Amino acid sequence: MTDKRVPAGQRGRGASPTEADGTGTAETEAGGTGAGGTEVASTATESVPPAPGTRRPGGRTARTRAAVRDAVLTGLADHGYPGLTVEYVADHSGVHKTTLYRRWGGLEGLVADALDMAGEDSWVPPDTGSLEGDLRELAREVVDSFSDSSAASAPTAFVAAAFQSERAAQALHAFYAERFTRCTAVVARAVERGEADTDIDAAALVRAVSAPLLLRVFITREPIDSALADQSAAAALAATRAGAYNRR
Amino acid sequence: MTDKRVPAGQRGRGASPTEADGTGTAETEAGGTGAGGTEVASTATESVPPAPGTRRPGGRTARTRAAVRDAVLTGLADHGYPGLTVEYVADHSGVHKTTLYRRWGGLEGLVADALDMAGEDSWVPPDTGSLEGDLRELAREVVDSFSDSSAASAPTAFVAAAFQSERAAQALHAFYAERFTRCTAVVARAVERGEADTDIDAAALVRAVSAPLLLRVFITREPIDSALADQSAAAALAATRAGAYNRR
Repeated sequence: MTDKRVPAGQRGRGASPTEADGTGTAETEAGGTGAGGTEVASTATESVPPAPGTRRPGGRTARTRAAVRDAVLTGLADHGYPGLTVEYVADHSGVHKTTLYRRWGGLEGLVADALDMAGEDSWVPPDTGSLEGDLRELAREVVDSFSDSSAASAPTAFVAAAFQSERAAQALHAFYAERFTRCTAVVARAVERGEADTDIDAAALVRAVSAPLLLRVFITREPIDSALADQSAAAALAATRAGAYNRR
Repeated sequence: MTDKRVPAGQRGRGASPTEADGTGTAETEAGGTGAGGTEVASTATESVPPAPGTRRPGGRTARTRAAVRDAVLTGLADHGYPGLTVEYVADHSGVHKTTLYRRWGGLEGLVADALDMAGEDSWVPPDTGSLEGDLRELAREVVDSFSDSSAASAPTAFVAAAFQSERAAQALHAFYAERFTRCTAVVARAVERGEADTDIDAAALVRAVSAPLLLRVFITREPIDSALADQSAAAALAATRAGAYNRR
């Protein structure tokens, strides 16, 4: 269940996952103290604004929210968005259906909140000391996050759900926007070291690193591996050095 | 209907659409002569192997196949894969439901065949005389193909359907594989002109040009424009010049 509570491919690593989830664990445990899920989440992600189109109902414990999120992820992974029902989430979370409707509004709200929680982690991009190393690590983390089908199932289900639910689409957009914003720290450090120009479009660069990988995973359905990650990182580095991402 | 018979974003242009569809039109008209859809398709795409996971029932006219394809695309665009039914296709194509089941097997076969037909066009990549110009044109064609929501709806529905149907996923994979293979002509010409090394990974380069654009359209749901296209092309060109796509 740990791997599903932390939806691989949706959490970080250059718009991809992490294996361990300190924040999620803390959140779940904090729930036992009676702290509200919203408050704990706020503490864990002070700099992360709430995703548009989602809401975080207050008053329930973080433990309840995590249990519901786990059930949503399991359901998405096993049945996809079309097969997911509020009944399923109720059965697998132990939270009554009427509570789910009251607090999350329904299925779209449940999925959006699960995605929102996926963004509430403490992931930070690699800091290897060089742009080359950082970009390579970012790309490799994306590949690692899709290394097996169980890790890939939840993020894939989120991307699929976004095609069917406007609210999920908004939550997915917000997730990636926030995730890529974290990645720009890599570019800021590169600028400080003189490895990139001050007018570089950092948002474009960090997206370029993972784009060829996510294209293959979610759209063309082609395999990815560490060699492809390295190639993508090398290409992004070369383009950076040539000034291709500089604003004109 | 023309725009839907030619699913923008799914046909070419660096894994994207074309506006006009000479092949599709010829195919429809050829149907009137009694030529089989399969035969016409073979003529139009001699070098294109049938998509795995799809089949092309023989014997029906190309006109029938085109009408069915139109209905599938309209249905996907209007209702998405979860809302599409064989009944809908029958109603909108004028082809009896039992015929649809007999010839296409069911909904998955209908969607896979529509995607298969989307790949049966005469699109060829740009040939501007330079790799720089060709990559820029490829990227801009992708942007143009998603310039309005009606053009984008059918390809988006195909990508969405692939998340829910293994057969659609196989057809989508085959579509993009064939489309990107056509794009490698751009790289072959660049190698001949000495603009790229002979050991360049052409498949990786052509995917890299459209990846940042398709990532934003289908996954992160961010806007794309011609400036982003030019940036993506410039980055791919710089990476090519630096040897980042060369096989090691």
